Amino acid sequence: MGEALGGLKRSMYCGEPRESDIGKKITLMGWVQRNRKLGGLDFIDLRDREGIMQLVFGEEINKDAFEKANTVKPEYCIAVTGEVVKREATNDKMPTGMVELKCDMIKILSESQTPPIYIKEGLDASEQVRLKNRYLDLRRPDMQKIFILRNKVTKVARDFLDNNGFLDIETPILTKSTPEGARDYLVPSRNYPGMFYALPQSPQIFKQLLMISGFDKYYQIAKCFRDEDLRANRQPEFTQIDLEMSFVEEEDVIEVNERLISTIFREVLGHEVKLPIARMTFKDAMEKYGSDKPDIRFGMEITDLSEEVKDIDFVVFKGALENGGSVRALCLKGGASMGRKDIDRLGEFVKTYKAKGLAYIQLKEEGIKSPIAKFLSEDDMTSIISKMSAETGDLILIVADKNSVVFQSLGALRMDLAKKFELIKDKSEFNFCWITEFPLFEYSEEEERYTACHHPFTAPMDEDLDMIETDPGKVRSKAYDLVLNGEELGGGSIRIHDMELQQRMFKALGFTEEEAWARFGFLLEAFKFGPPPHGGLAFGLDRIIMFIAGTDNIRDVIAFPKNQNAYCYLSEAPNIADEKQLEELGINIKVKEDK
Amino acid sequence: MGEALGGLKRSMYCGEPRESDIGKKITLMGWVQRNRKLGGLDFIDLRDREGIMQLVFGEEINKDAFEKANTVKPEYCIAVTGEVVKREATNDKMPTGMVELKCDMIKILSESQTPPIYIKEGLDASEQVRLKNRYLDLRRPDMQKIFILRNKVTKVARDFLDNNGFLDIETPILTKSTPEGARDYLVPSRNYPGMFYALPQSPQIFKQLLMISGFDKYYQIAKCFRDEDLRANRQPEFTQIDLEMSFVEEEDVIEVNERLISTIFREVLGHEVKLPIARMTFKDAMEKYGSDKPDIRFGMEITDLSEEVKDIDFVVFKGALENGGSVRALCLKGGASMGRKDIDRLGEFVKTYKAKGLAYIQLKEEGIKSPIAKFLSEDDMTSIISKMSAETGDLILIVADKNSVVFQSLGALRMDLAKKFELIKDKSEFNFCWITEFPLFEYSEEEERYTACHHPFTAPMDEDLDMIETDPGKVRSKAYDLVLNGEELGGGSIRIHDMELQQRMFKALGFTEEEAWARFGFLLEAFKFGPPPHGGLAFGLDRIIMFIAGTDNIRDVIAFPKNQNAYCYLSEAPNIADEKQLEELGINIKVKEDK
Repeated sequence: MGEALGGLKRSMYCGEPRESDIGKKITLMGWVQRNRKLGGLDFIDLRDREGIMQLVFGEEINKDAFEKANTVKPEYCIAVTGEVVKREATNDKMPTGMVELKCDMIKILSESQTPPIYIKEGLDASEQVRLKNRYLDLRRPDMQKIFILRNKVTKVARDFLDNNGFLDIETPILTKSTPEGARDYLVPSRNYPGMFYALPQSPQIFKQLLMISGFDKYYQIAKCFRDEDLRANRQPEFTQIDLEMSFVEEEDVIEVNERLISTIFREVLGHEVKLPIARMTFKDAMEKYGSDKPDIRFGMEITDLSEEVKDIDFVVFKGALENGGSVRALCLKGGASMGRKDIDRLGEFVKTYKAKGLAYIQLKEEGIKSPIAKFLSEDDMTSIISKMSAETGDLILIVADKNSVVFQSLGALRMDLAKKFELIKDKSEFNFCWITEFPLFEYSEEEERYTACHHPFTAPMDEDLDMIETDPGKVRSKAYDLVLNGEELGGGSIRIHDMELQQRMFKALGFTEEEAWARFGFLLEAFKFGPPPHGGLAFGLDRIIMFIAGTDNIRDVIAFPKNQNAYCYLSEAPNIADEKQLEELGINIKVKEDK
Repeated sequence: MGEALGGLKRSMYCGEPRESDIGKKITLMGWVQRNRKLGGLDFIDLRDREGIMQLVFGEEINKDAFEKANTVKPEYCIAVTGEVVKREATNDKMPTGMVELKCDMIKILSESQTPPIYIKEGLDASEQVRLKNRYLDLRRPDMQKIFILRNKVTKVARDFLDNNGFLDIETPILTKSTPEGARDYLVPSRNYPGMFYALPQSPQIFKQLLMISGFDKYYQIAKCFRDEDLRANRQPEFTQIDLEMSFVEEEDVIEVNERLISTIFREVLGHEVKLPIARMTFKDAMEKYGSDKPDIRFGMEITDLSEEVKDIDFVVFKGALENGGSVRALCLKGGASMGRKDIDRLGEFVKTYKAKGLAYIQLKEEGIKSPIAKFLSEDDMTSIISKMSAETGDLILIVADKNSVVFQSLGALRMDLAKKFELIKDKSEFNFCWITEFPLFEYSEEEERYTACHHPFTAPMDEDLDMIETDPGKVRSKAYDLVLNGEELGGGSIRIHDMELQQRMFKALGFTEEEAWARFGFLLEAFKFGPPPHGGLAFGLDRIIMFIAGTDNIRDVIAFPKNQNAYCYLSEAPNIADEKQLEELGINIKVKEDK
């Protein structure tokens, strides 16, 4: 059993002693990073969350302490008392590197077995081992830094929102399905056997109700839940900075959120975000970058060649144009030298985005090479090259198809080429951009109906109101996303606050009145009582932290994450439940299957 | 459909205009509190979260606005522009009562039906109607105040903890059973059909793991879940201010939490909590007040009469003493005049706490009256009266039984009498008290074994370590509760950080090694790697807000609460689930029962 503190108090963190502390008698507590003997002395590096301090023990300093120090091993938890002295061999790399602690007392608070992972900067273990031994993984200084950073981000965000009149109000976790459309986690009810709560995918409806309640400005750092198959950077539970404001229009929401984001980046990273942040309509983003979250740290925009090729007798181009599609292209600077095989691979790549193929034009020193050259007159070729602003040495890559396929495939190809050819020069850049004027609806081939692009409470743009019934695909919405370096940081919208309009919206989405009331009746009911104009936004907090911490793994920014099967290696959740409890809940397990 | 804002910006809250604003042109937005005509003018009281402002419309101010203002009804949401002018008939009761707004523009942003509850201070509706129409109930100024207060309490707590080096770290909601011993909410897993997550009853294990991770000081304002039958002031989901510290002993945890609580009461209420807060051992609390959360705003302590009555030949007293119990009493000042029926009712009352009866001695002007007088000599009577410090006019109430029954029944009787006889003089007093030295174990008659009083990670007091195996009922723990006016505000303990001791603890609790590892193995495993001494505490945030807001209904301090059956009248959760989803989860509904 370890020794008790017995009233001993720590006087500093290990990372704190400096030259100005020389001569002070202090007490430190922490974990042994390493323990080595040198010239009859015993040196221990002692670590806590704030840093590392070198301890020195010697027979002539204190014999008992020296002998006990000899026995400690890495990750023992110890307390020591001693005098801060100047170090002989100083270490510039450590903030405490000018001093060391001459120790006359050591308590072994607890011992440690050899840990299964090294506690140091950088990774040495598989993710499974790290997650299983998360408490040790979290001891690593780079993980400690991430959670100190995360704490700072939420604190700065809260301070900002508080200063701007937002009220932090908690919304329920045990609730009813919310309208995001992903799969809910369910919680069986004991009081109502056969009935279920749902965990919220977001506080969407409740924050709108808070606006109807007159709270005016709401925020919450809110846990959200989605029972989806986890792609690389998703977790079953994740955190949003969620906010909503009354008596506002798009500009107001955008303005306050720009200040929020710039405050976070300034206070946490010392980085100045240039305000106002650039804006781009959804249409422009798709046409230029083939994406609603364009990475605009580099150019290589998509160019529309439909006009240039409209008279060409090439069945692929003709077919695309006749079916209402388009012919568009990228120009890869200096790409003409790419070999046939590599270009073929690009062709395979775009096929994964449903493009039928990839035409290309190589502008080589020795002349133009292109499999479609035979369909083009010299004038055609000249006008294409001119439209693409292509020069000798460049490679033009062309997709002809319906627009959605053209955008998606060229957008993905653009990102793929950027990676391959390192088109993003400054990796430390934070390039923000608002995307606006999203479509209100998108057509779901699967469900054979229009679905809401954001959610069914998003307001249409005033000028497009008339098209809700006649041409829903063309209606734009008062929605906005904030994109950083090609990733969505957050998004929101002005909401519908009019019951009639909300009902038109539900109708366009194919809900019967009964279905709409069954799902969202309490919100519709609330609309009867003077709802204010309102709108809001939610940022993915985990994603913000990933950017700020410079990691591309969401599991690095969540203290106790789950794996891609939503399994926790540490606690072994999910796990079996007590038969008696299932009995009380009125449920049976149908399938019993071990994975 | 309501009018659009069309770029109109609010310049102030309704509660803000003052005499110093006279002459300013401002725009306000809010809800119509009332609309009345007077002397050819139209007066509207406009309300938002910050207060109420009087608007005035007239034909000669602006005819269009006047006519439109005539049409608005209570709870319409409107925007107005006008000039702040001095009010003729000032109103001292309103902060804005010196001015009014002479309006030349009004927009009706949305209309309202007649609301089912009045939007005003004070209650006029049943709780069910309030909860069903929560968005309207929350518009009432007293509810708005509560959530503005709640926001302030959490902000002050966060600022304090941040300033004191605590890191806000999120712990999982989808997790495994935690050791509190109440019933968990379960969440069926889709990836592992037949397996379940549990919602946390507290972040207990995770916060201890964070200490083992070296985070040193953790806090979280954490949602917790218990699927229990809801007593008056319980909710299935509730919120804790949860914290944990490394390298500390009891004094350290108590000290920082005293400062936290006093900071909250000072910053939010302007109330100075006298520090240090008084302390009482569990033993004293039980012996003097018959409760581990004693209300010490009044005296009337329990007095032990065992010594005085030990030789009396009264079977009830004798029996109690022979069985290791005791004879104890309360002295109700001025209670001698209580009638027989009322005293009988007190006898019925203590029977609900398993006491077999209530003996009494009335010290009337005309002489002593007592059904047990016949068993007592004059000397016995004198020594009882003297021990009780009773005087003519007082009533002595005696219970003889085993100690647990004596304490519980007299403790409850003490509170009951305090209420009936208004013994608590100053209702605005905040009387804090720490209760310490809780027993580590309590014997569960039902389970026929010892259970943990707090939780199985609570450390025993050093001086009692040896009794864990030999006399577990006598072992005291390093646990502490903070009690305010007879209610538990929070509690915590120093934790065991030694695996051997933890295993002795589990053994004493009757867990086999296998059971202990199945439930808490990941914590035991973590103990192998240098766990620091640590301890912490959790406050019930909802309860703190209840005290600060002066309400005794927990549902008043939760924005969207559930009723006592854990049902939400507003969203109608829990509700039926989709068959397809249950299929994916691999569960069947066994009972289908509508309540």
